[in-house]
Amino acid sequence: MIELCEKNKSFGGFQEVYEHQSSSTNSKMRFAVYKPEEYKNAQVLFFLSGITCTEQNFIQKSGFQKYASEKNIAVVVPDTSPRGINIPDSEDFKLGCGAGFYLNAVKEPWSKNYNMYNYIADELPKIIEKNFEFNLNKLGIFGHSMGGGGAIQIALKNSNLFKSVSAFSPICSILKSNFSQNAIKEYLDSNNDMIKNYDPINLIKESKKRNDTIKIDVGLEDEYLDDLFINEFKDECSKVDQKLDINFHEGYGHNYYFIHSLIESHFIFHSSRL
Amino acid sequence: MIELCEKNKSFGGFQEVYEHQSSSTNSKMRFAVYKPEEYKNAQVLFFLSGITCTEQNFIQKSGFQKYASEKNIAVVVPDTSPRGINIPDSEDFKLGCGAGFYLNAVKEPWSKNYNMYNYIADELPKIIEKNFEFNLNKLGIFGHSMGGGGAIQIALKNSNLFKSVSAFSPICSILKSNFSQNAIKEYLDSNNDMIKNYDPINLIKESKKRNDTIKIDVGLEDEYLDDLFINEFKDECSKVDQKLDINFHEGYGHNYYFIHSLIESHFIFHSSRL
Repeated sequence: MIELCEKNKSFGGFQEVYEHQSSSTNSKMRFAVYKPEEYKNAQVLFFLSGITCTEQNFIQKSGFQKYASEKNIAVVVPDTSPRGINIPDSEDFKLGCGAGFYLNAVKEPWSKNYNMYNYIADELPKIIEKNFEFNLNKLGIFGHSMGGGGAIQIALKNSNLFKSVSAFSPICSILKSNFSQNAIKEYLDSNNDMIKNYDPINLIKESKKRNDTIKIDVGLEDEYLDDLFINEFKDECSKVDQKLDINFHEGYGHNYYFIHSLIESHFIFHSSRL
Repeated sequence: MIELCEKNKSFGGFQEVYEHQSSSTNSKMRFAVYKPEEYKNAQVLFFLSGITCTEQNFIQKSGFQKYASEKNIAVVVPDTSPRGINIPDSEDFKLGCGAGFYLNAVKEPWSKNYNMYNYIADELPKIIEKNFEFNLNKLGIFGHSMGGGGAIQIALKNSNLFKSVSAFSPICSILKSNFSQNAIKEYLDSNNDMIKNYDPINLIKESKKRNDTIKIDVGLEDEYLDDLFINEFKDECSKVDQKLDINFHEGYGHNYYFIHSLIESHFIFHSSRL
């Protein structure tokens, strides 16, 4: 059972938001769905947002609806974590609500709710398939920052489900990035095997590569560039012949102005591959 | 003296935000400026936002930068009122901070600061001319809701300054709209002559018409349609032969999804007229 919370016409289609009870996170979860005009049997993209975001940031700020409408692609945007009065949280914006890191927590008090990996890689695709008439055989995934890294790690382990993958300014190592130090300690109890299982660079090292190209865009004025480990990811990809299309963009930062400026190219990329 | 607060690259240009001390509002004021790549001698558009907005809403949510970049138009987005600890405010979102209504208040305690008409029609154009290298002889104005009505009333009285005008879902009567009842009572002391001077329908009635076309777009699912008085404005325009290009859009509401969906057409409109 999913419940419609918002519905607004946008570029001929509808930008909707739904709420449902999630079995992965044992909580209510919200996700946004953009339905293009001809949504039946449409290609689908999941977009995973960065730290502090809800399902709202991408749908309000990225300008994606124009391209989803033109290319007739449905877009699903989940929240970045469970939320609510009974959900554990922290004062650190990099841990707790808004910072689920797309993994399954193993340590109390997080493990009951912080299971965003299962939510994205298993529960949400089934919910979308059951409740909408899109073509889930043509499903791609992309994301930004924490969500860019999440999209890559999930796509590397689920090639059959996610047929294409791209990222804006992805965090390519949860083991090394300052953004994820509290997360790997608290959610994963600093367990090295588990950390590696959610770390894009390590997954590539272990040759969990894809046959298709991973597209990545990064701003050269990104204030967090040193925390993304893009070049290390690139190096590992080249060692195992993982095809990559990385572009560095002069003058751009780590924000929605950057995403908006490049978003069309991601729709062109996924549309031609799905 | 204006001070740069934000600068982010967007579609090859820069989305900037400035702060300065305003002589109209006797307070600090913020405004956003989009500088396209070739900003020297560029056409300029002022965008006036609706109630509750700051300079941020339009620059984050409308997706305008793509078209400003393509058409090489500089875009200036002021805040909707003075703000700050010494600025009078109210608990009603339709009065005080975020609801300046683009008029000059005459009643205490508002009259010292709430002078957004002077700010937009006089002070801000001079500040832009002094601090940027745009072409202020090619200046147009547009806006949304309260700001759509503001753009029209200011443009009707300042044809020499604003060479083109358009609006999304404008409040066409501050005399009649529920949105402005507190504003006309508090800012204008319910003085009928002053209210009429800021009322688009009345200005048209008094034949303060323009030689050029006013473009208006409205969503037919606009939840505030009855408070906009669009058809009454249309009727008065037709009586005095004011050229109008009004389009009603099926399914669209009173929000940024609507603005974003139609924004390109406003850039085409202004660009061809400036």
